[in-house]
Amino acid sequence: VSESGQDDGMRDTPFLAVDVDLLERNLKAMANHAATAGLELRPHAKTHKSVFLAQLQIERGAVGITVATVSEAEIFASAGLDDIFIAYPIWAEGPRAERLRTLATRTRLRVGADSIEGVRQLAQAMGSQVHRLAVAIEVDSGHHRSGRSPESAAEVAAAALEVGLTVDGVFTFPGHSYGPGAGDSAARDEAEALTIARGALTAAGIPCPVVSGGSTPSADAARSDVLTELRPGVYVFGDAQQWELGTCAPESIALTVRATVVSRRDDTVIVDAGSKALGADRASWASGYGRVMEYPNARILALSEHHATVRFPSDETPPAAGTRLRIVPNHVCSAVNLADRYTVEREGAEIDEWRIDARGANT
Amino acid sequence: VSESGQDDGMRDTPFLAVDVDLLERNLKAMANHAATAGLELRPHAKTHKSVFLAQLQIERGAVGITVATVSEAEIFASAGLDDIFIAYPIWAEGPRAERLRTLATRTRLRVGADSIEGVRQLAQAMGSQVHRLAVAIEVDSGHHRSGRSPESAAEVAAAALEVGLTVDGVFTFPGHSYGPGAGDSAARDEAEALTIARGALTAAGIPCPVVSGGSTPSADAARSDVLTELRPGVYVFGDAQQWELGTCAPESIALTVRATVVSRRDDTVIVDAGSKALGADRASWASGYGRVMEYPNARILALSEHHATVRFPSDETPPAAGTRLRIVPNHVCSAVNLADRYTVEREGAEIDEWRIDARGANT
Repeated sequence: VSESGQDDGMRDTPFLAVDVDLLERNLKAMANHAATAGLELRPHAKTHKSVFLAQLQIERGAVGITVATVSEAEIFASAGLDDIFIAYPIWAEGPRAERLRTLATRTRLRVGADSIEGVRQLAQAMGSQVHRLAVAIEVDSGHHRSGRSPESAAEVAAAALEVGLTVDGVFTFPGHSYGPGAGDSAARDEAEALTIARGALTAAGIPCPVVSGGSTPSADAARSDVLTELRPGVYVFGDAQQWELGTCAPESIALTVRATVVSRRDDTVIVDAGSKALGADRASWASGYGRVMEYPNARILALSEHHATVRFPSDETPPAAGTRLRIVPNHVCSAVNLADRYTVEREGAEIDEWRIDARGANT
Repeated sequence: VSESGQDDGMRDTPFLAVDVDLLERNLKAMANHAATAGLELRPHAKTHKSVFLAQLQIERGAVGITVATVSEAEIFASAGLDDIFIAYPIWAEGPRAERLRTLATRTRLRVGADSIEGVRQLAQAMGSQVHRLAVAIEVDSGHHRSGRSPESAAEVAAAALEVGLTVDGVFTFPGHSYGPGAGDSAARDEAEALTIARGALTAAGIPCPVVSGGSTPSADAARSDVLTELRPGVYVFGDAQQWELGTCAPESIALTVRATVVSRRDDTVIVDAGSKALGADRASWASGYGRVMEYPNARILALSEHHATVRFPSDETPPAAGTRLRIVPNHVCSAVNLADRYTVEREGAEIDEWRIDARGANT
């Protein structure tokens, strides 16, 4: 799972550096939160895409993992992860149908569904093995992406039972938690939508053992009297979005992109980590395209593919060319998906490398 | 270089599809433009990151290629590309110093420089082989990224000569051409900055055989009486940015991300190509996060990692779940860097696969 690192003491930038002690602290904090709340923790592995990290999460009490695609599920299942939720309304046609069937016969697999056509496709893909696939009905709790109205969840659940699928319950992604001060209200919306959806299933005589929610910004406020399962992803590392939302302190951010200043003029420097290392994500409320750990008052005004343009306040001296900086990406899931490996550090010294096994696993 | 494709007739989405006839037309059009203008064409290979495509460009008259990083240069040089410009102010320290020296001894190599410290680092990296490395001085023509003032270009050129480097000339990237109606004025800025920079070198007695500029939106208006060399990248494929800027017609766009509708509600559908397939780039003037080839009036309102939220006008019927769409990414360089291969098609039928050799080559 891991490979030994170079020992030249200086790796060429840009690269992803993980502080293993901070990572460990973040893993434990979320595991403790879930245990205290009586919730099952099923972390979203799309953030880290690493078999080694998923195994760490399981060792610390996670019941299984969440992924977004069949190919992510295939990679984690091949490595021995045996309880996987693809939290996505899979359209099971073409080669994907057979891939899903193969996967469902060798691991405990749950997939998302938000339409009657979708569950019929799933059943057709599974053929005689249809009972081996569990579904959870996705409901929209306010993010307005995929997912149907909570009131209509039972229609899809009933269709799923009718075609022979197993129904685990209901889930939502309260993605509207990604806004200033929005975590608590998104957690309330999540609980309300899931309560309605569970009620609809129960009223239709359909058991609903799984009530799954959770995102990193809403996890603290997740309603343990409604949910049975939490699916946060970003918490393992944190990122500039979580920093600016107040969900994590900069001191707890476990992943940075190590970069070098290559050019400097007046109050502005250019560093060699651009959108191909950091990702181009920028929410409307973000202060820029990421943050600089050593210079919290600096702002990343622009990104090209291999340049970040960083402006410093007038009372700070910008770093000289050649200076190495730790850049915190806005959205860590995107930054991780651009790299092949993590450089793992303890107290600033490189101790290991971990593969990003599921990078690019989009299908 | 190429591998034969699957012949199941249906590949799981999302994937990058290249129309080889449109690609060929785009390659020829830019080669003809450069030849007619009497400019040397040195296409930026960071767009396609493909050895096979770089070779096609050379076969159609390109004098060499441009890249952004030492690792991109290493990959193309290993494949036999022997005239490479790293158009970036390389900071040659650590392992990168030795990598650069190795590279410069086996290929004709030019790198960018925009500071006296930078050229001293380059010389130190090259050691006794310093004469084998050519530099071009980067000047800022209005994009305000890296590059120094045109007036001061000769200071860096003189410093480069003093430490024994070869000086090829001057270059700029008129990246402010990426705005509505900005191509022509950016080309004027480019010509003005390069004229000043060349004049400064000449006045200092420093020959300036190379005057290099060019971006796809400014290429048509590039001043052939000033420039000697053009470095466009995106023109090989086109993308939604070029479509919306009017630099390319949608009919000439040679690369799309093939995606499937997975969920539908009212006037909105969700397709399975998100920011991990399309890239998250969105300029302030863009209509959304990409365009849908089959539905030019639809708008991509939001991207998650594996979801694009597409809204249709009230007088159009959104496609049903299971429908396959061709999504045009905003910035094709970012989309390409997320994939491992191109699926190559002619008249809609898959005929080949090409590797994206330099994906993730950021160092």
